[in-house]
Amino acid sequence: MTDIRYPCLLFIGDVGDQIGAKTACAIAHWWPDRCVGQLRLTGCRADLGIRDLTVREAVAAGARTMIIGTVNVGGNLPEHWHATILEALEVGMDVACGLHARLSEIPAVEAAAQRLGRQLFDVRHQPRTFGCGTGVKRSGKRLLAVGTDCSSGKMYTALSIHKAMVARGIKADFRATGQTGILIAGSGVCVDAVVSDFVSGAAEHLTPANDPDHWDVIEGQGSLFHPSASGVTLGLTHGSQPDALVLCHEPTRTRMRGLPDQPLPGLRECLELNLMTARLTNKHVRCVGVSMNTSGLTEEASSDYLRRTEQELGVPCVDPIRTGVSRILDHLLHLLG
Amino acid sequence: MTDIRYPCLLFIGDVGDQIGAKTACAIAHWWPDRCVGQLRLTGCRADLGIRDLTVREAVAAGARTMIIGTVNVGGNLPEHWHATILEALEVGMDVACGLHARLSEIPAVEAAAQRLGRQLFDVRHQPRTFGCGTGVKRSGKRLLAVGTDCSSGKMYTALSIHKAMVARGIKADFRATGQTGILIAGSGVCVDAVVSDFVSGAAEHLTPANDPDHWDVIEGQGSLFHPSASGVTLGLTHGSQPDALVLCHEPTRTRMRGLPDQPLPGLRECLELNLMTARLTNKHVRCVGVSMNTSGLTEEASSDYLRRTEQELGVPCVDPIRTGVSRILDHLLHLLG
Repeated sequence: MTDIRYPCLLFIGDVGDQIGAKTACAIAHWWPDRCVGQLRLTGCRADLGIRDLTVREAVAAGARTMIIGTVNVGGNLPEHWHATILEALEVGMDVACGLHARLSEIPAVEAAAQRLGRQLFDVRHQPRTFGCGTGVKRSGKRLLAVGTDCSSGKMYTALSIHKAMVARGIKADFRATGQTGILIAGSGVCVDAVVSDFVSGAAEHLTPANDPDHWDVIEGQGSLFHPSASGVTLGLTHGSQPDALVLCHEPTRTRMRGLPDQPLPGLRECLELNLMTARLTNKHVRCVGVSMNTSGLTEEASSDYLRRTEQELGVPCVDPIRTGVSRILDHLLHLLG
Repeated sequence: MTDIRYPCLLFIGDVGDQIGAKTACAIAHWWPDRCVGQLRLTGCRADLGIRDLTVREAVAAGARTMIIGTVNVGGNLPEHWHATILEALEVGMDVACGLHARLSEIPAVEAAAQRLGRQLFDVRHQPRTFGCGTGVKRSGKRLLAVGTDCSSGKMYTALSIHKAMVARGIKADFRATGQTGILIAGSGVCVDAVVSDFVSGAAEHLTPANDPDHWDVIEGQGSLFHPSASGVTLGLTHGSQPDALVLCHEPTRTRMRGLPDQPLPGLRECLELNLMTARLTNKHVRCVGVSMNTSGLTEEASSDYLRRTEQELGVPCVDPIRTGVSRILDHLLHLLG
């Protein structure tokens, strides 16, 4: 995929609450200097806390792409948003979208993009194909965020570690594997949309050979313990051949996401299976830390939980928001730096 | 997919050797009474050992489908075969093919099928989509063939066990997961061609709830230890929720297929990881046997190897060709019948 061009205008339509603008929130959080403003339609109940702009004002402010930053069940693109999308193309922007619905399948939008020479980025549906993975060792270093479950903080953790690495002057790239990650990073591969035979090949393509001291910080997907997503997780692990794993977990969750009958795995059990499988393509893989989303716990319960988990597993255990990830980075540099 | 209609005519073109007709050989071996004959073009160096027929003679003998039973590197359909394919459609047959190349992408073939109301089966490329897997327990029993590597006898083993079950009056279906298996069974899902997010859902669809005493005997794919194929294997395992695993192995192989740097896993290590992962969707999963392709060993070396492996792993260890699979079936019925 061609990379998405920044800065961008974040379009959040008329979503009914802040959750509906989740993708835009994440982009504004991670790359505030890549966002010139937000575009909200009448009735919108979300607010990214940045200035409101029309498409014309956004282009005048330098925006090169309008990103549809919304999520909804079904992943559709409401018809009354089409006019704004067409307007964005007309005034000079590309448009990017991470929903299931495709911009390129809206005839007027596709025709306008063709006529005006603009790019449409349907990041969930990349046309390119990949080869099979080979498992052959590549130069450079790789960290993969894995999880006890889907939606357990893997993207947030990988972005936090990438940011901390860059702040310390370490050569690093964040490698996005899901639609929100791709919209934040501007490139990546939506691995769960790749034909199953080519998932590890896609992961190899995403994290190519690099300088020996360069880190790819890879957003994980799913969980080896999630019956819907495990195949994607394993293919991504084998293709990524990580040197370092960070285990992500949401401590108040008791059942796998979307599956009320499926309990969460234990942290140690989860870590051991992840290490065991990752060894296939990197014998020296290590766990360098555990990253928790403890937002559901009080400050005291969170500290207590992090401390106990750290004692139990013997690696730094952090909450990226409450404690930051620097202790994971220290440990990683100590082991693998 | 609509099921392929039998009996069939096996088309093997002008392949240069017996290996080039591998798919047709497998169909003729497993379902001799479904094959009215073979169609060979001038120069063909393979022979299925059944009568040669023209397309007209085949139809007169009852054939309803012509199956392209060849394999080649690249999976292409030579242009000089098109005339015979068109002739088969004209005289009344559907045409099925397991190559990468699609019948439906040959304009004259697609047009003829449309005009005549015939079906084209490109079994590697099924148009249907699947949902995500749920991991919810289904009634009925399931056996899955797993392997130390790709091409380690999983299809052959599953077909042998299915045949033995039917011979004993056990209710059973063979569930095909690859193109040759589908052409043999007449239906199935080519799981490595499914979008990765839906592999376990496809496996759930393929092995639906059934009578409590019914067995689905499922062709496995890849290996948890093959860096190109592991994701497909894990998704298939979790979606199949097998009660019984049979481990397949080719004892003379020392390196993973296509990967000269990747050693084969040990049998015990391979079995343990397969059981550990399969427990996610079926806590009671058991290994009921090991199936070896010992064709590369002498009779004596084969017996010796099977006996030693059986002692080591504590389950029946057979070669489907040399010893048959009845001891695995006995053990399975003893444990799970």
